[in-house]
Amino acid sequence: MSTNKEKVVLAFSGGLDTSYCVKYLSNEKGMDVHTAIVNTGGFTEKELEEVEMKAMSLGAASHKTIRQVETFYQQCVKYLIFGNVLKNNTYPLSVSAERVFQAVGIAEYAQEVGATHIAHGSTGAGNDQVRFDMIFHILCPHIQVITPIRDMKLSRQEEIDYLAKHGVEKEWAQAKYSINQGLWGTSVGGEETLTSNLALPEEAYPTQVTETAVKQITLHFKEGELVQVNDQKNAPVKNIEYLNAIAAPYGIGRDIHVGDTIIGIKGRVGFEAAAPLITIKAHHALEKHTQTKWQQYWKEQLGNWYGMLVHEGQFLDPVMRNIEGFLTETQEKVSGKVFVTLAPYRFQVDGIESENDLMSGDFGKYGEENLSWSGEDVKGFTKMLANQTKIYHAIHNKNNND
Amino acid sequence: MSTNKEKVVLAFSGGLDTSYCVKYLSNEKGMDVHTAIVNTGGFTEKELEEVEMKAMSLGAASHKTIRQVETFYQQCVKYLIFGNVLKNNTYPLSVSAERVFQAVGIAEYAQEVGATHIAHGSTGAGNDQVRFDMIFHILCPHIQVITPIRDMKLSRQEEIDYLAKHGVEKEWAQAKYSINQGLWGTSVGGEETLTSNLALPEEAYPTQVTETAVKQITLHFKEGELVQVNDQKNAPVKNIEYLNAIAAPYGIGRDIHVGDTIIGIKGRVGFEAAAPLITIKAHHALEKHTQTKWQQYWKEQLGNWYGMLVHEGQFLDPVMRNIEGFLTETQEKVSGKVFVTLAPYRFQVDGIESENDLMSGDFGKYGEENLSWSGEDVKGFTKMLANQTKIYHAIHNKNNND
Amino acid sequence: MSTNKEKVVLAFSGGLDTSYCVKYLSNEKGMDVHTAIVNTGGFTEKELEEVEMKAMSLGAASHKTIRQVETFYQQCVKYLIFGNVLKNNTYPLSVSAERVFQAVGIAEYAQEVGATHIAHGSTGAGNDQVRFDMIFHILCPHIQVITPIRDMKLSRQEEIDYLAKHGVEKEWAQAKYSINQGLWGTSVGGEETLTSNLALPEEAYPTQVTETAVKQITLHFKEGELVQVNDQKNAPVKNIEYLNAIAAPYGIGRDIHVGDTIIGIKGRVGFEAAAPLITIKAHHALEKHTQTKWQQYWKEQLGNWYGMLVHEGQFLDPVMRNIEGFLTETQEKVSGKVFVTLAPYRFQVDGIESENDLMSGDFGKYGEENLSWSGEDVKGFTKMLANQTKIYHAIHNKNNND
Amino acid sequence: MSTNKEKVVLAFSGGLDTSYCVKYLSNEKGMDVHTAIVNTGGFTEKELEEVEMKAMSLGAASHKTIRQVETFYQQCVKYLIFGNVLKNNTYPLSVSAERVFQAVGIAEYAQEVGATHIAHGSTGAGNDQVRFDMIFHILCPHIQVITPIRDMKLSRQEEIDYLAKHGVEKEWAQAKYSINQGLWGTSVGGEETLTSNLALPEEAYPTQVTETAVKQITLHFKEGELVQVNDQKNAPVKNIEYLNAIAAPYGIGRDIHVGDTIIGIKGRVGFEAAAPLITIKAHHALEKHTQTKWQQYWKEQLGNWYGMLVHEGQFLDPVMRNIEGFLTETQEKVSGKVFVTLAPYRFQVDGIESENDLMSGDFGKYGEENLSWSGEDVKGFTKMLANQTKIYHAIHNKNNND
Repeated sequence: MSTNKEKVVLAFSGGLDTSYCVKYLSNEKGMDVHTAIVNTGGFTEKELEEVEMKAMSLGAASHKTIRQVETFYQQCVKYLIFGNVLKNNTYPLSVSAERVFQAVGIAEYAQEVGATHIAHGSTGAGNDQVRFDMIFHILCPHIQVITPIRDMKLSRQEEIDYLAKHGVEKEWAQAKYSINQGLWGTSVGGEETLTSNLALPEEAYPTQVTETAVKQITLHFKEGELVQVNDQKNAPVKNIEYLNAIAAPYGIGRDIHVGDTIIGIKGRVGFEAAAPLITIKAHHALEKHTQTKWQQYWKEQLGNWYGMLVHEGQFLDPVMRNIEGFLTETQEKVSGKVFVTLAPYRFQVDGIESENDLMSGDFGKYGEENLSWSGEDVKGFTKMLANQTKIYHAIHNKNNND
Repeated sequence: MSTNKEKVVLAFSGGLDTSYCVKYLSNEKGMDVHTAIVNTGGFTEKELEEVEMKAMSLGAASHKTIRQVETFYQQCVKYLIFGNVLKNNTYPLSVSAERVFQAVGIAEYAQEVGATHIAHGSTGAGNDQVRFDMIFHILCPHIQVITPIRDMKLSRQEEIDYLAKHGVEKEWAQAKYSINQGLWGTSVGGEETLTSNLALPEEAYPTQVTETAVKQITLHFKEGELVQVNDQKNAPVKNIEYLNAIAAPYGIGRDIHVGDTIIGIKGRVGFEAAAPLITIKAHHALEKHTQTKWQQYWKEQLGNWYGMLVHEGQFLDPVMRNIEGFLTETQEKVSGKVFVTLAPYRFQVDGIESENDLMSGDFGKYGEENLSWSGEDVKGFTKMLANQTKIYHAIHNKNNND
Repeated sequence: MSTNKEKVVLAFSGGLDTSYCVKYLSNEKGMDVHTAIVNTGGFTEKELEEVEMKAMSLGAASHKTIRQVETFYQQCVKYLIFGNVLKNNTYPLSVSAERVFQAVGIAEYAQEVGATHIAHGSTGAGNDQVRFDMIFHILCPHIQVITPIRDMKLSRQEEIDYLAKHGVEKEWAQAKYSINQGLWGTSVGGEETLTSNLALPEEAYPTQVTETAVKQITLHFKEGELVQVNDQKNAPVKNIEYLNAIAAPYGIGRDIHVGDTIIGIKGRVGFEAAAPLITIKAHHALEKHTQTKWQQYWKEQLGNWYGMLVHEGQFLDPVMRNIEGFLTETQEKVSGKVFVTLAPYRFQVDGIESENDLMSGDFGKYGEENLSWSGEDVKGFTKMLANQTKIYHAIHNKNNND
Repeated sequence: MSTNKEKVVLAFSGGLDTSYCVKYLSNEKGMDVHTAIVNTGGFTEKELEEVEMKAMSLGAASHKTIRQVETFYQQCVKYLIFGNVLKNNTYPLSVSAERVFQAVGIAEYAQEVGATHIAHGSTGAGNDQVRFDMIFHILCPHIQVITPIRDMKLSRQEEIDYLAKHGVEKEWAQAKYSINQGLWGTSVGGEETLTSNLALPEEAYPTQVTETAVKQITLHFKEGELVQVNDQKNAPVKNIEYLNAIAAPYGIGRDIHVGDTIIGIKGRVGFEAAAPLITIKAHHALEKHTQTKWQQYWKEQLGNWYGMLVHEGQFLDPVMRNIEGFLTETQEKVSGKVFVTLAPYRFQVDGIESENDLMSGDFGKYGEENLSWSGEDVKGFTKMLANQTKIYHAIHNKNNND
């Protein structure tokens, strides 16, 4: 059915805000509303079907489910692992990274269907609005962006009333904690995260602790990617999901991140991310054994920067492709097994095994006698290594004594 | 008593290697051996007395106890906290940092007493020989360094036999784990740390886990320094010791560090460092609330570099003084309380309270509506922020389509 | 005279845009217009008086001359020298740095006189609007900023007509090149700088080349500051001005800078900056002789960052104070003479003389035999230095051959 | 002819030191001396023939000419251009980079011919010994390195006398300046470079200034490589040589570099490098127009580091391959023409032309009105950009006033 109406693609989650947008854009703006949802790992097929039914029942002209888990892994999560990216040494960028891919998915779909507008339900208070707006400005500068919730600063009650008036009578339950789930972790916001001093209570976390027995697992990496968990070989995305299923019931990977938002204020968010935390720490341990000092040094610099730009929605800056090129090069020898022990609320990387292990006994063991060099070699080494600082001190001692 | 013999200052710990050195240097080299021990937090007064008695009974010409805990804190540990220094995101540099101060203490003492030689008991297999040699080359280039154990590659049995031959009959028990204790943590080496794959067993750790009840504590920082623990105000050194007494029985701060030694091989070392780990993580949390994004960014760069150079014995490079200047400047507003929960084998930073908290409700809360800016402001912001990448993509899309 | 009118402080230069603003703000907005000019080195006392007369004749309620040359040097230029700051290895930040201090001067004056508004004459096309707006938002968030030229997108002719209508009949000559002069250099914009491919012609540069004879000069630095030029000892600001008077007639320090503006587009600007270029290169040469390798390395990192944030108007981020602390620490030993040869369009740093010169003949000359170390020492050194990469290659050769 | 003698490969240049080594190694050590020379651009075919004749007449068992100019370009010079590498913002690493490739060439040859030893003529006073030793330790750890000149600390006269005694009577003229020529520049050492204060005189430079007329040239780059000079398309190596032939007679690219040697002392060296300097500055200008801000930022970090490690002989650290991967990625859009003006002793980059120029008039010109954004957009932008620092100042003003 072709109409003369303007065509808007709406990023739709099935929640109150975006439900409001469907009605508002079609009724008040007279637009054909084409809803779309991008799955980056947070939804089951059943949930995706429910979202579609909601969209259609609200009067969407069409609904599209965009499956991006594999793309999300290949184009972003992989590099977050290569770079051991933990924002502020804490947060695996669970939500930040996903939002970028959701925005890209929506932008591509809008261009594909020839939309003149894109709408999203972000408020004016967070990072997501920036991520969405920026990606849309860059990828489809000729498509206009509409953000009804941000523009009209609507309250929940106003939205509920408007929907009711237009025949949508529904129980819009407000959860005590706002949860965002995806492949790379789940964020948790609540009244505690609006303070600086309070931790989240146990019940805030979606996965409750049910495992109590210490368990040992083995992760297999090949060129930096997680290719096997215990005896289960599979694609990395599947391995991450499998690892999460094993580890999440231990309450592993919970923490609160306090960081600098794109809009300049401090933001605090809780999260649970068992598989991301274990994968990154295990991968990092393997790198400590297989990379040289300066490889690790520069990986840390570029990995952190990569994470910062992902977080801030700058994923499309070409420097990101350049950094990905660097990170990929560094993974050539990052292959081997990592042994991890899981326990309630914590885990421990026990050790690694790799044919690329530079801690090879063939070349001298730390603290043990060795055959590769002599005490005389080290004496020469330390003499030369001290040389510049020695000259510096000698000159300034002399000057001071003159 | 003045003699015509050459005077050597020997860094003496009371162990087999340095006991051998006392006898060897006096008997074989005909030197006056002046032993000295530098305490950077690992010894009680009683232990220091015992070391002195051992030295004198071995025939030392004199023995000196150099108390450097406060100096060590003021000139180094303080900056390790300011810089949140964890080597490879893991190791608080427990032993590395101490060695530098022990070397400095010995070098100053040797100059003071007019020694012509300095001796230390390092072998040729580790980092310590480099740290000692370098500091001595720099601070007292005219004093000659002697390292009998390294030079002669002696076995334990050869040392024991030599001592016995010279009348020192003693039980030289070899502990299963080699332990190095100091203010900033305790290192643990053993057969497992010579492998890449094995974790240390429970019994390897000097402090056994005796606390099981979850406990909440409050750390008070003033301009980056730990000035109070719970209701106990004291000097930072005392607070660190007090915090360690509280937290160590939880088994907190245990881990294994794998790193690049100064001599190019990989080294692996276990450690327990309850107070250092808690202090650093709490301090870092306070910084996340009180510093701007770029302050944190550059602190991380310079803090990590500082840690690397401490580790590698380059403490006397003047760049270290420059970095200390930077770090000190950054601490101006790092004051407030940090709330921490202790539990067996783990701890959690719950939150902070500070009058310098930039997450102040007065200026907009993350994810909540606010009065400081409007949706329109953010729209303009994102438009400009996207500008360069947008131009980049527009030009290259155009070129591709030409 | 006290009125009930709103009080606006207008940053006033005497040019067409800000002359328009005086009339517009008083006539159309009914405000008391208090003009102010901040001199950061570009104006003579005579020019400042003329500006004042213009302001009063246009109907300003008052006019204030704010002399900031010394402040500008002490709080910014000094650090640009310490950091050897040349944006993109080219541009000494001539205009960028000044604008920040002009904005700070205006902000402080507006608070002092209790203004409710600040006005500036920036258009919507450049960096200056961002620098002014940001500084005002930060230093006086309760004062409202007005930008008539940006808001109304007025053409020159519209402004001239408006002024004529209100009795200001004047020849508003439009120079072919737009010139901005200050202590730290002069920028030159013109039709060529709007292209990517054209250089500026000779006549575009305000200082024409009149010196042809090669001349040698000596610059004296003390802890990084220029304290003497040839036999003339003076305050650094005077020395910079004196050096510029000597060197500018050689056409030294001319170039074109292409850079990233704060608003995301590329900008191109010509400049002449004889004293800044010579001072920075001479200072840098002295540092190469007096600082260690890592001091230089980190100075470059932090100096470049400092320059970037000055350029982008982020001068008030506290990280800038921290970096200034670092830079100041690094200058302790940067004292001595630098010998420079001037020639038409170029100069050359010939060499230095300093009691802190680390290239002291006492400790070995490069390429000459020496007494401080032996060939054996270097052999041990290279063996250990090669160790990690040697192990890396050995392991991977072995793996490849298996 | 096969002998039972040990086989040594000697890096041979035809000069006094390596001539001595041929005789010494065969006569005193009884070895079969296989000489080899690696040409990285400094020798003509005729010169290479002369070197061969010298080797054979001294009694070498064989002589090999290893032509590495193209390899040197492809594996190193290319990346020095991509990274705009100028050590200390001055020196294009003319000699440093060559030495590495000479060492690699010798190491590979020694392995190929099954040598048990490698000899080189370095003294104990410079960087070259470290570069050679390290590369040999890494690439052929089982081959023993011999350095007669370093080991015996021989004087020129001792070498001359020894050669004369063994029938080699020759005029071993000692040039006033020691010259090292290669594809990427020529270094010049002399009595002035052993001081800190003296410049090199005109006559020290091998290429005298014979061109006086200003000339304009055009360099064409494709993905970062110099593919054409004026109307001459050719391979990059040929273009560099051609550019050098044009520019060297202007005296362009002369300077003195003061830097930190690998052995901790300061070293000073003159050089002339017309083509390297022009190529790097032209390439950099093109990047300023075609890369984003953060691409340029990270290129500078990694390019400088790459240069440092090349200089220090660490070319075989795998981080270098990772950085090369990064640099290659960044060059994708660095294509276009660069216009350069040559004049005696100086050159100027006039401008560029590229279809990838981000300073495209289509998206707003700096300082001109534009259509891509409005004054309101910039107001929102500056408000948000100021936000964090504004909050910081507000909180601390409030605290100060309490």
